[in-house]
Amino acid sequence: MPTPASTAQVDVAQPETPVTPVTPGFSSTSPDETSNGNDPWAVFDSNASGGFSNNWAAQPEGTETGKTSSNAWPSGGQGHPQAYQGPDIYPYPCLIDLSGAEDDEWDEEWDDVKSSGGYAESEAGEGGAINRGGAHGSSMKIALNKFPGFSKSGPELYLLSKLPAKGTKLSVYTGEVGPVWAYPDYQLDCVVADPKKGSKMYGLKSYIEYQVIPTTTNKPVIHRYKHFDWLYERLLEKFGSAIPIPSLPDKQVTGRFEEEFIKMRMERLQGWMSRMCRHPVVSSSEVFQLFLSYKDEKDWKMGKRKAEKDETVGVMVFSTIEPEGLPDLDLTEVEQKCEQFNRFTKAMDDGVKDLLTVGNEHWKRCTGPLPKEYQRIGKAFQNLSSVFISSGYEGEAVLTDALTAAGKTYEEIAQMVAEQPKKDLHFLMETNNEYKGLLGCFPDTIGVHKAAIEKVKEADKLVAAGKITPSDKITMSKRASTMSYSLQAEMNHFHSNRIYDYNRVMQQYLEQQVKFYEMIAEKLRHAHGQFTTM
Amino acid sequence: MPTPASTAQVDVAQPETPVTPVTPGFSSTSPDETSNGNDPWAVFDSNASGGFSNNWAAQPEGTETGKTSSNAWPSGGQGHPQAYQGPDIYPYPCLIDLSGAEDDEWDEEWDDVKSSGGYAESEAGEGGAINRGGAHGSSMKIALNKFPGFSKSGPELYLLSKLPAKGTKLSVYTGEVGPVWAYPDYQLDCVVADPKKGSKMYGLKSYIEYQVIPTTTNKPVIHRYKHFDWLYERLLEKFGSAIPIPSLPDKQVTGRFEEEFIKMRMERLQGWMSRMCRHPVVSSSEVFQLFLSYKDEKDWKMGKRKAEKDETVGVMVFSTIEPEGLPDLDLTEVEQKCEQFNRFTKAMDDGVKDLLTVGNEHWKRCTGPLPKEYQRIGKAFQNLSSVFISSGYEGEAVLTDALTAAGKTYEEIAQMVAEQPKKDLHFLMETNNEYKGLLGCFPDTIGVHKAAIEKVKEADKLVAAGKITPSDKITMSKRASTMSYSLQAEMNHFHSNRIYDYNRVMQQYLEQQVKFYEMIAEKLRHAHGQFTTM
Repeated sequence: MPTPASTAQVDVAQPETPVTPVTPGFSSTSPDETSNGNDPWAVFDSNASGGFSNNWAAQPEGTETGKTSSNAWPSGGQGHPQAYQGPDIYPYPCLIDLSGAEDDEWDEEWDDVKSSGGYAESEAGEGGAINRGGAHGSSMKIALNKFPGFSKSGPELYLLSKLPAKGTKLSVYTGEVGPVWAYPDYQLDCVVADPKKGSKMYGLKSYIEYQVIPTTTNKPVIHRYKHFDWLYERLLEKFGSAIPIPSLPDKQVTGRFEEEFIKMRMERLQGWMSRMCRHPVVSSSEVFQLFLSYKDEKDWKMGKRKAEKDETVGVMVFSTIEPEGLPDLDLTEVEQKCEQFNRFTKAMDDGVKDLLTVGNEHWKRCTGPLPKEYQRIGKAFQNLSSVFISSGYEGEAVLTDALTAAGKTYEEIAQMVAEQPKKDLHFLMETNNEYKGLLGCFPDTIGVHKAAIEKVKEADKLVAAGKITPSDKITMSKRASTMSYSLQAEMNHFHSNRIYDYNRVMQQYLEQQVKFYEMIAEKLRHAHGQFTTM
Repeated sequence: MPTPASTAQVDVAQPETPVTPVTPGFSSTSPDETSNGNDPWAVFDSNASGGFSNNWAAQPEGTETGKTSSNAWPSGGQGHPQAYQGPDIYPYPCLIDLSGAEDDEWDEEWDDVKSSGGYAESEAGEGGAINRGGAHGSSMKIALNKFPGFSKSGPELYLLSKLPAKGTKLSVYTGEVGPVWAYPDYQLDCVVADPKKGSKMYGLKSYIEYQVIPTTTNKPVIHRYKHFDWLYERLLEKFGSAIPIPSLPDKQVTGRFEEEFIKMRMERLQGWMSRMCRHPVVSSSEVFQLFLSYKDEKDWKMGKRKAEKDETVGVMVFSTIEPEGLPDLDLTEVEQKCEQFNRFTKAMDDGVKDLLTVGNEHWKRCTGPLPKEYQRIGKAFQNLSSVFISSGYEGEAVLTDALTAAGKTYEEIAQMVAEQPKKDLHFLMETNNEYKGLLGCFPDTIGVHKAAIEKVKEADKLVAAGKITPSDKITMSKRASTMSYSLQAEMNHFHSNRIYDYNRVMQQYLEQQVKFYEMIAEKLRHAHGQFTTM
C-alpha cells in the first residue's frame, strides 16, 4: 500500500524499484570477515556541538602534501567549506604512517594524505575548526568569499549576466510537494567494487584502484581515489552554488589496517557515488557521465580537459535551470520558506550529531566493556563447572555439562555483542554521518540564495542610481525567481531522499537488532534446555 | 528421566517433590512491585579475595550496641567465625540512621544495629576482616579457640567423654554416594511471610514481626528478627562443630528504603530457614521444632529456657550421632577425603566469589550506564522524529510516527534492562551469596575433625604416658570414626544440595534471560513493522 511518504517520494525523487543500497560494497561483505575490535566511530567528538572537521587545519595548504596535480583550480586542495564534514576523517583509533610504497605514491599521487601525527594535528587545529563551525548561519559572507567561482562576485554575476545559457536546460516542475527537479525515468546508480592494488613506474609507486560499474551500461570503468577527488572538485565548482555537494569521504586519513581502511573507503565512495547518481541534475551532467562511462584513456583525458574548461560554473549554473511554465515567485514567501528550511537543517544537524554521539558511545560499550563482561560471566560459569567436576561426588555430570555449556554460550554472546555494531549500528552511523556532511553544505547553498534576494531588494536603488536599467531589474527578479525554484527543488529533493534514507536505515537497523536478540534468546534457550528439569 | 544427579539427590537429601524455592517469599512478589534503581550488590567487594565480612570489626563487642539479651553464652554477640559471611551486610548503597522509633527499639531489642557511619566503620575494620580471612585453612587453631563450646577444650571433650549420650540418636547410613544422614520421609519447609510493624510500650518501641508457617502444621507462628538470631545462636552452639550453620543475613544493616530492606531481609530469612529445614539433623532438633511450632507464649518461653540449658552442645553433639552398622574408618582414607573436600570448598569459594564479583559488575552496568544509553538512543530517535515533523514537508507521517515509536521502544528497553537483574541476576547472586556463607563455615567444621584425627594419632603416646587407658584409646578411635562419618554425611548433604541449588538457579536465570531477550526482540519487531517496506 503506498503511504503518503512513499507517494511523495515517487513523485519527486524515488525510483519505482529500490535503488542499490547506499553501501552495497560493504554490506555484501560478510561481517565475519571484518577484523574485530576496530571502532570506526571511536574518535567521534562526544561534544555534539563541537564535532567539526579539521580538514583544513590538518592540511592548511593544498601543497602541503606535495600535491603536484594538474588541477588548475585556484582554490587548490581547499575544498568546499563544509562545517560538519568531520570526525570521520579519523575512522580508526590508531593512525600510523603509510607503508613506504604508499608514502612514495603519496608525494605525487595524493591518493591519501600523510597521516603522521594525525591526532596531534587534529587537536592543534581544533580552534580553527570550531571558528569555522561558528560561521554556520550568521557569518555567511565569510563562507561565501571562499566559495569557488564566487570569490570575486556574488550572485549578481548570474543575476546581471548578459550571456545566453548554452546547452540543454535543467527543468524544474511543480510536483505534489512544490517545485521539483525533472527526474529521469530510469534511476541511475553504480557499484563501486573490487579494490585492487595497482602500481606504476616499475612498481615504485602503488595505489588502489576501484571498479565503478554504472547500472546503465553495466560496463566497469577503473578509477583511483584521486579521480573521485577530481570529480568532486568539478561537481563542487559547477553545482556548488545550487546543490549541496558533500565532501568525498576520508580524504585525509588512513587506518592502521590497510584492508579495513580500503573497505571502509570503498563503502563511503559507494555511498557518495550513489547519492550523486540519485541527484537528477548531477547525474545527468556531462562530467559525471564521463566519469561513469568513459570509453578509453583518450576519451577520459579529453573529457577531463573539457570539464576543466567548463565556464558554466559557480552561480552561472542557474543560467542552465529553467522553471517550466512556473510564475515568478513572491520574494517574501520565498524568504519565509528559506528561513524555515534553514531552521530545519540546523535542527536536523543537531539531531544527527546527537545521534552520532550517542551511537558512538553505544559502539564503544558494545565493542568494549559489554562483551568483556559477558565473557567474564561465561568464564565464571565454566570455572564453577570445573570446580564442581573436581568434587569427586558422583552423578553431577548433567549439571557440570550444562554449566559448561551455559558458560560457553555467554562467551558466544560476548562475541555476538562485539560484532553486532558492524551489522546494524554501523549503517545507522554511516547514514547519519553522510547527512551530517550534506547538512553542512546547506548554509552556503542557502547563503547564495539569500544574497541574491538581497540584491533584488536593492534593485530599485540601483535603477535610481543609474547603475542598472529597469529591464535589468526585471531580469534580476526573474533570475532570482529561478534561483528560488532551484533551491526549493533542492529542498524537496533533500526531503524525499531523507525520508527514503531514514526509513531504509531504520528498517535495516531494527531488522538486525531483532535478529540479534532472537539469536541470543535462541542460544540461551538451548543452554537452558541442558539443565535437569526438576 | 532421572539423571544421575537427580538419582543421587533423591538418595541423600532431595525430596521427591520439589521443595519450596529457597526464596519463595521474595519470588512470589511481582518484580514490578520492587522499586527501581536500588542495587543490593552495589557494595560487593570487587576484590574477590578480599570480600570478607567486617561483622566484628563494626561491632567488636556484643555489648557495643547496648545488647542486653538474656543470652548466657560466654562468647556473647561474637558469633560464628565465618570468613565469607560478608559484603551483604551492606546491601544498599545508602546507609542512614534508623528512624527514631527504631533507634529506641534498638537499644533494648537489637533487631538491628545502629547504622550511623556504617561505611566508615566498614573501612576502618577492613584490616581486621582481611586478617580473619587469612585464618581460613592454615591458622585453624585460632579459629577453633573462638568456637562456641570449644574454647577451653578441643574435640577431646567428646573423644574422652564419660557421659552417656541422652535422647534419640542421629543416624548415619551408607547411601549410593557414601555415608549420608537419615533423611525424613517428609521434607520439612516453611514460609516466612507477611512482615508487619509491631510495637510495644504504648507505641514507644516498634519492630518488624514475620509470620513463619511450617509446611507440617500450616499454622503460622510469629517471630521477630531477634528470635531468628536467638535460633541461630542455639543452632550454632549445638551443631556448629558438625554442621556448617550459615550466619543469619543482614544482622547489622538497614537500608535507606525501609520497605525494600524489609523485603530483602525477609527473602534472606526465608532462604536461611529453608536451608535449615532441608537439613535432617537441624530440622529434627527440639530447638528448631520449638521455633517453628510453639503453641503459645508460655510454651515458647519454657522451650527457650530449656534450649539455653542444653548441654549436648559443641563437640558433644557427636555423642548423639550413630553410624548405623558402619565399620570403623581407616584414618588415612578419611584424611585424604577431608583434604579433597577442603580443597574443593576452597576452590568453590573462589569460584563463587568470582561469580559474585562479575555479577556485581554486571548488575551495576545493567542498572546504570546501559539503560541510560538505551534511553539516550530512544531520545535521539524521538528527537530526530520531532525535527522531521518540523520540516513542513508533506507525507512523512509514516516515517515520523515509526521513528517516534522506535524511540519509545528503546526507552522501554532501557526500563526492561534496568529491571531485569531483579528478575534473574538477583537469584543467582543470592544463591551464590548463600553458598559463600556456607562455604565459609567449612574450614571450622573440617578443623574440628582434623584436630580429632590428630588426637587419635597421639593416642599411643598418651597410653604410654599413662594419661589414658588402652580402653580410652579404643573409645577415642571409635568416636573419631563417628566424627568422620558425620563429616562425610555432611559433605554429601552439601554436594546434593549444591547440585540441586545450582541446577535450579541456573535454570531460573536462563529462563528469565530467554524471556528478556525474546521480549526485546518482540518489541523491536513491532517497532520495525511500523516503517514503510520499500
